[in-house]
Amino acid sequence: MVPLLLLLRHYSIRRLHNHHIKPFTTTATHPLHIPLSHPTYQIWSSNTSLGKTLVSTGLASSFLLSKSPSKFLYLKPIQTGFPSDSDSRFIFSKLSSLSLLRNLPLFSSHSVLHSSLPAGTSAKFSPQTVPGIVNLGFNEEWGKSELSDGRELICKTLFAWEEAVSPHLAAERENAVVEDSVIMETLERCLREGLEDGNRERMEVFCVVETAGGVASPGPSGTLQCDLYRPLRLPGILIGDGQLGGISGTISAYESLKLRGYDVIAVIFEDHGLVNEIPLMSYLRNRVPVIVLPPIPQDPSNDLMEWFDESHDTFNSLKEVMLSAYSERTQRLSDMAKRAGNVLWWPFTQHKHVVEESITVIDSRCGENFAVYKVQSNGYITQQFDACASWWTQGPDATFQTELARDVGYAAARYGHVMFPENVYEPALECAELLLKGVGEGWASRAYFSDNGSTAIEIALKMAFRKFTFDHGILLDFLNNDTAKRCIELKVLALKGSYHGDTLGAMEAQAPSSYTGFLQQPWYTGRGLFLDPPTVFMCNSIWSLSLPKGLCSETLKLEDTTFRSRDEIFHTSRDKSNLARIYSSYISQILLQYSGSEGISYIGALLLEPVIQGAGGMQMIDPLYQRVLINECRAQKIPVILDEVFTGFWLLGVESAAELLRSVPDIACFAKLMTGGIIPLAATLTTEGVFNSFLGDSKLKALLHGHSYSGHAIGCTAAAKSIKWFKDPQTNFNITSDQSSLRELWDTELVQQISLHSAVQRVVALGTLFALELQAEGHNTGYGSLYASSLLQSLREDDGVYMRPLGNVIYLMCGPCTSPEICRQLLIKLYKRLEEFNQVKEKLESSTF
Amino acid sequence: MVPLLLLLRHYSIRRLHNHHIKPFTTTATHPLHIPLSHPTYQIWSSNTSLGKTLVSTGLASSFLLSKSPSKFLYLKPIQTGFPSDSDSRFIFSKLSSLSLLRNLPLFSSHSVLHSSLPAGTSAKFSPQTVPGIVNLGFNEEWGKSELSDGRELICKTLFAWEEAVSPHLAAERENAVVEDSVIMETLERCLREGLEDGNRERMEVFCVVETAGGVASPGPSGTLQCDLYRPLRLPGILIGDGQLGGISGTISAYESLKLRGYDVIAVIFEDHGLVNEIPLMSYLRNRVPVIVLPPIPQDPSNDLMEWFDESHDTFNSLKEVMLSAYSERTQRLSDMAKRAGNVLWWPFTQHKHVVEESITVIDSRCGENFAVYKVQSNGYITQQFDACASWWTQGPDATFQTELARDVGYAAARYGHVMFPENVYEPALECAELLLKGVGEGWASRAYFSDNGSTAIEIALKMAFRKFTFDHGILLDFLNNDTAKRCIELKVLALKGSYHGDTLGAMEAQAPSSYTGFLQQPWYTGRGLFLDPPTVFMCNSIWSLSLPKGLCSETLKLEDTTFRSRDEIFHTSRDKSNLARIYSSYISQILLQYSGSEGISYIGALLLEPVIQGAGGMQMIDPLYQRVLINECRAQKIPVILDEVFTGFWLLGVESAAELLRSVPDIACFAKLMTGGIIPLAATLTTEGVFNSFLGDSKLKALLHGHSYSGHAIGCTAAAKSIKWFKDPQTNFNITSDQSSLRELWDTELVQQISLHSAVQRVVALGTLFALELQAEGHNTGYGSLYASSLLQSLREDDGVYMRPLGNVIYLMCGPCTSPEICRQLLIKLYKRLEEFNQVKEKLESSTF
Repeated sequence: MVPLLLLLRHYSIRRLHNHHIKPFTTTATHPLHIPLSHPTYQIWSSNTSLGKTLVSTGLASSFLLSKSPSKFLYLKPIQTGFPSDSDSRFIFSKLSSLSLLRNLPLFSSHSVLHSSLPAGTSAKFSPQTVPGIVNLGFNEEWGKSELSDGRELICKTLFAWEEAVSPHLAAERENAVVEDSVIMETLERCLREGLEDGNRERMEVFCVVETAGGVASPGPSGTLQCDLYRPLRLPGILIGDGQLGGISGTISAYESLKLRGYDVIAVIFEDHGLVNEIPLMSYLRNRVPVIVLPPIPQDPSNDLMEWFDESHDTFNSLKEVMLSAYSERTQRLSDMAKRAGNVLWWPFTQHKHVVEESITVIDSRCGENFAVYKVQSNGYITQQFDACASWWTQGPDATFQTELARDVGYAAARYGHVMFPENVYEPALECAELLLKGVGEGWASRAYFSDNGSTAIEIALKMAFRKFTFDHGILLDFLNNDTAKRCIELKVLALKGSYHGDTLGAMEAQAPSSYTGFLQQPWYTGRGLFLDPPTVFMCNSIWSLSLPKGLCSETLKLEDTTFRSRDEIFHTSRDKSNLARIYSSYISQILLQYSGSEGISYIGALLLEPVIQGAGGMQMIDPLYQRVLINECRAQKIPVILDEVFTGFWLLGVESAAELLRSVPDIACFAKLMTGGIIPLAATLTTEGVFNSFLGDSKLKALLHGHSYSGHAIGCTAAAKSIKWFKDPQTNFNITSDQSSLRELWDTELVQQISLHSAVQRVVALGTLFALELQAEGHNTGYGSLYASSLLQSLREDDGVYMRPLGNVIYLMCGPCTSPEICRQLLIKLYKRLEEFNQVKEKLESSTF
Repeated sequence: MVPLLLLLRHYSIRRLHNHHIKPFTTTATHPLHIPLSHPTYQIWSSNTSLGKTLVSTGLASSFLLSKSPSKFLYLKPIQTGFPSDSDSRFIFSKLSSLSLLRNLPLFSSHSVLHSSLPAGTSAKFSPQTVPGIVNLGFNEEWGKSELSDGRELICKTLFAWEEAVSPHLAAERENAVVEDSVIMETLERCLREGLEDGNRERMEVFCVVETAGGVASPGPSGTLQCDLYRPLRLPGILIGDGQLGGISGTISAYESLKLRGYDVIAVIFEDHGLVNEIPLMSYLRNRVPVIVLPPIPQDPSNDLMEWFDESHDTFNSLKEVMLSAYSERTQRLSDMAKRAGNVLWWPFTQHKHVVEESITVIDSRCGENFAVYKVQSNGYITQQFDACASWWTQGPDATFQTELARDVGYAAARYGHVMFPENVYEPALECAELLLKGVGEGWASRAYFSDNGSTAIEIALKMAFRKFTFDHGILLDFLNNDTAKRCIELKVLALKGSYHGDTLGAMEAQAPSSYTGFLQQPWYTGRGLFLDPPTVFMCNSIWSLSLPKGLCSETLKLEDTTFRSRDEIFHTSRDKSNLARIYSSYISQILLQYSGSEGISYIGALLLEPVIQGAGGMQMIDPLYQRVLINECRAQKIPVILDEVFTGFWLLGVESAAELLRSVPDIACFAKLMTGGIIPLAATLTTEGVFNSFLGDSKLKALLHGHSYSGHAIGCTAAAKSIKWFKDPQTNFNITSDQSSLRELWDTELVQQISLHSAVQRVVALGTLFALELQAEGHNTGYGSLYASSLLQSLREDDGVYMRPLGNVIYLMCGPCTSPEICRQLLIKLYKRLEEFNQVKEKLESSTF
């Protein structure tokens, strides 16, 4: 008979309300610390009831009963069907029997830490009666520690529910949901308690963490277990399926683990006479050992003692595989820094200063956090918040990273790489359309793909120069006169301190700097007219303007140079100000000199980083000044290029920083965050007018600039996904309801407080960026300065915040989806370290004088 | 009791012999043709026995019994357990019952095409008695066609085996293995027979192809079904699992399909009262509909008529989802060319010549083949061999593509993107070490990563110039004298016709050409000394040398300019030849002029594409000449840069083309094929001497050139995988036993035959490249020429070979793993088209005169 409940249900397509779709957060209140001191594995399974606990038991028996001293730690974070099902109780009792049978002493303990109220009540040891999760603190022991010959078994269930269903269902039905962060913190504590006892040798302790159900079965909060445990990224053993159809389930489960960045060390399954190992080994290409267990007796009265005997060699093999994989992993981690120092040549790095200890060994990343290897305390993995957003590219939180990984895998499988010219495939088309509807809205009509910001700029310059010569009739005049056209000099108008990339064309558009000297690029000449821009910043809690020499004027008033709020800086009411007139007359005078009437030197393009100059030291340029520049150039038919490589895609709190300028360009360059920060891809967007200046009968009039991977499918897939994800309030909780901007990520009061700090010269907080310049003088300033080193060292090592300096400028950068609470924590940590920094500095100064 | 067989097995780690690991090939003897004229779906399942056939039946009933005329085509390519299990028989008989019950007329047929001998014998209709696969040709009918109201059901089993086990096992045990290509061809034929009947409206026909077992269950040859059917890439319906643990299996199966580039249109599963749809919908974020079926009666005597009634609405919903997804897909495919023409700006493309019809719509790629959409015949997908190897980057066959997709997904999940400087993570380290041990063996000690060939060259030039100035004491002299150092002119020595990329620095190292004019880059000046190189090629079946004017000499003999074989060209015995002396004296004279004694203009670097100049028209340069150049430069302490962006990673049959020169550089650039052709990544390798010239106390002496994604984890993962895969004889069957080169891919006789063809000027066949220059004159030659268009058009449209011209030079390029047989077929097709081309040309010429 069909139960009533089911009859009442309407069998059709289901749609979920949005509140059912939630992100899982991987950011605990403190950085996770995962010991590597002893072999530790996660036991996964491709389905329920395939024998995870039998494998744990077999491993415990192989480990404990073959050597002494030895300690086996068994952790079951999530148990349903409790108390009638208790995997930790099972292994506790089986090992007792086995130790008796083999006449080997053993001391073992079994505990259950927390459970739902119904589970606790059923087990008759619940100390509480309020609904929710109760602290059981149940503990039992067997054998005597002092007689155990150093053999110890510790079995723990962390959280238990009564009903024998999926944890998310049991938790809901028993009104006892546990947050992911609570499970992770409890698990971390148990791991550290069990593994950091100090007196045991490396191979004397062995730990397994057993999951519940299949690899992608939901945990109590609904987060899939393969996502829930991902911050630990423990190496895994996969229990496969030897039954009919089991090959498929095993392979799929393996792929789900790989798609979350796990390493699977071995696959093991029960023999059902179908030789499933042959296709599995073929699939795995012998890279992962496949181990087959003898058939498990089905009779419930069988105590399995015979089966464990029969399986003894098999479990020994598995244990050896695990021990040697552990050795290899720890060896590899501890060797990596040294090997890296021998073969890598890092950009922007003076290798003479690189010592092995200063190299960060990154095991993985999960969302905004790196998992960093540390050699101390027998080795461990710790979390660091990636506050340089991996060179200003990094957007995904943990949820989005998993989605991106799946989409990137899909794109690679569907397209590999496809040649772009005159071809179309969905990702490139979708990406182009999203760009034009998003950051290019209202002005752009064509997307030109390349690989990085530097190439996007080179392309933009070629486009702008063609448009300029086209609009100014230079092409007509000089096309057939080779000598004459070579004499024409096209310059770019740009700002000092701007940075557009390291290829020669992009460098030529930058003012002379440390990056452009003969030492770096003997071919650099600097083909631009470079203006000194006015900057804005917060200083002592007030937003202020600083004018370069050439712009200072007696007519200026205080109201021109200080602002009541950041918003005021961007307001178009300033267009009518005294300052706007000063800007305008200054710029138009400059343009007049290059109008072509006096010679053959033209300004062929304006090139700006809107609002923030990143590499130039996180300088905020007065947006009014940039707007006036754009307007004056447009009036002279000089194409306007915005370099949004750094600023684009919400970095400054809006999708395109041009919105902050309340202006549009003719050409704009995007890269970095465009793919969500996962893969190189760049786009140069243009107006139809620019595009049209390349049309003609000859192919030689077309833009003959390309790269093999132009518009590559994987990059475009990631970009299309990211563009949509970042701007959708259902996936990015930072998006305001009008979908036009990010909510304020940096706590306003804390920002002001930091700007008042005596160690701080100036502060800029905008979008995902918080930057500050440290008070410094002389050799402590500038790009080569190491002034901030000690400050950043403490933040990295003690606070788990990974930052990089730009000389005496330091910055925190998060992703567009990072929660304001995380940002607040970062500011608090930073403030604390500024205090220390000041104290040390003062001490140093007082001791010097 | 444990069966004897199992007791005899040793339960331990299994290792597979290599012959068990085999690639699956997706290249059929003719290009696949997949009709899009009517909705066609593949039915997948996350495990066996989850009701695939019930869903097929429900869909057939919903489709056939709700409208007329209507035709439902059910194909079961692989059936085991036959004849007692026959899914096609099940649907045939159930639909008969349902049509009776609902009193609607129906004409249905059921056939079984092939089976193993035991299956055929059991079914009592095997016409043969020899072991292997037998042609059954069994057919049965029900109802009358003329009374059916236009309702028609066609059910076909394509291949059947007797034992109810996995197909690979049944096939092996019944001695009746079927090759993948045979299954695919049979399936394609059945699809075309069933769908191309011409008289039916788009939505009057509905087709499902039902798989066997789970998504990754092996087919009869052992190939996983998700791999086997991949060339069709039919949109899929996934039958999930509503039982305990079923969420995990369903998600994992979904991910396995995505990881092979499939689109899943809906997930459907039987209700077991566990509300599995909630976590599934949450996981799928409402992007894929989730549909729940009422519980299926377990009683075998139940005829399910009631259940089908109860499920009627559910199946209607599913059918509607499928119909609308079909409409969307075909609409999207037919709109794409137009939309692309509106928003994309392709590199190297004169958009004025682009018409909608000339745009290739690529639905996907599988190994070396594109799946291309064609609008004709109500739309279909056809295969085209990607003979331009997608701009010279493409390496993977279908097997490798799947592996790369999984690895790329893994890297994205494990690392996302990680900042590179002063950090180390496994993929970057492994990739660097593999590069140094492989293409850099014997000379390179450092790897510098960037994004593409052009940036790798810019970096190489910066390195070379620093090394040069360092070695020649220029740094010491001028470091503190800014004016003086700006006057030093460093030139690059390079060959005419070479190409190194489109950023300004790379362009400056190229001789003036169509790419470098004022129209393209007003800033180009050409900072090189460009030599006219001697070339070699096969002409009329003989390998010959052509010398530029400056090198012609009266002392030359015939033996200097013709070769008995291609190998002879590369032989070092030529070092002692008369020609070598001519080369040497010519080059040393040139270098003398730039030795610095006469001024401040130096040759600061030698830059060469070894052996083949790609973009310059697939010119083969005399390797002896390049070797002499390298030796002479080295004697003058001029750093030698090899641009291996095009030639590297087996493109010319050896891992590094430097091997062909029997010489080593100081700096070499790699990109393109390095990642297996899937993602942009470049590396500049150098000697320790070059690296050392950047060491110093100041950061400003370090190489300040970088890109955000330097050494990005996904690219390095793909590169590490590809480097290993290409050179391993177990994965690349083209690798010779000494692992030093690829076997000959282009049939020697065919190559000679083509070189003798009157339409052909010259031929070059080396490694994965076969190039030929068409006899042409005047405006038919050069980069802008459209001379080869008609020839390439026929090859693309009629032969399924996608080629691109370089003016009147055309080429075939395959991957390092492509089988010689495929290459032979390509040459045969090309030869046939050359014949036609000549005939048309002759006709035209005779009609003109």
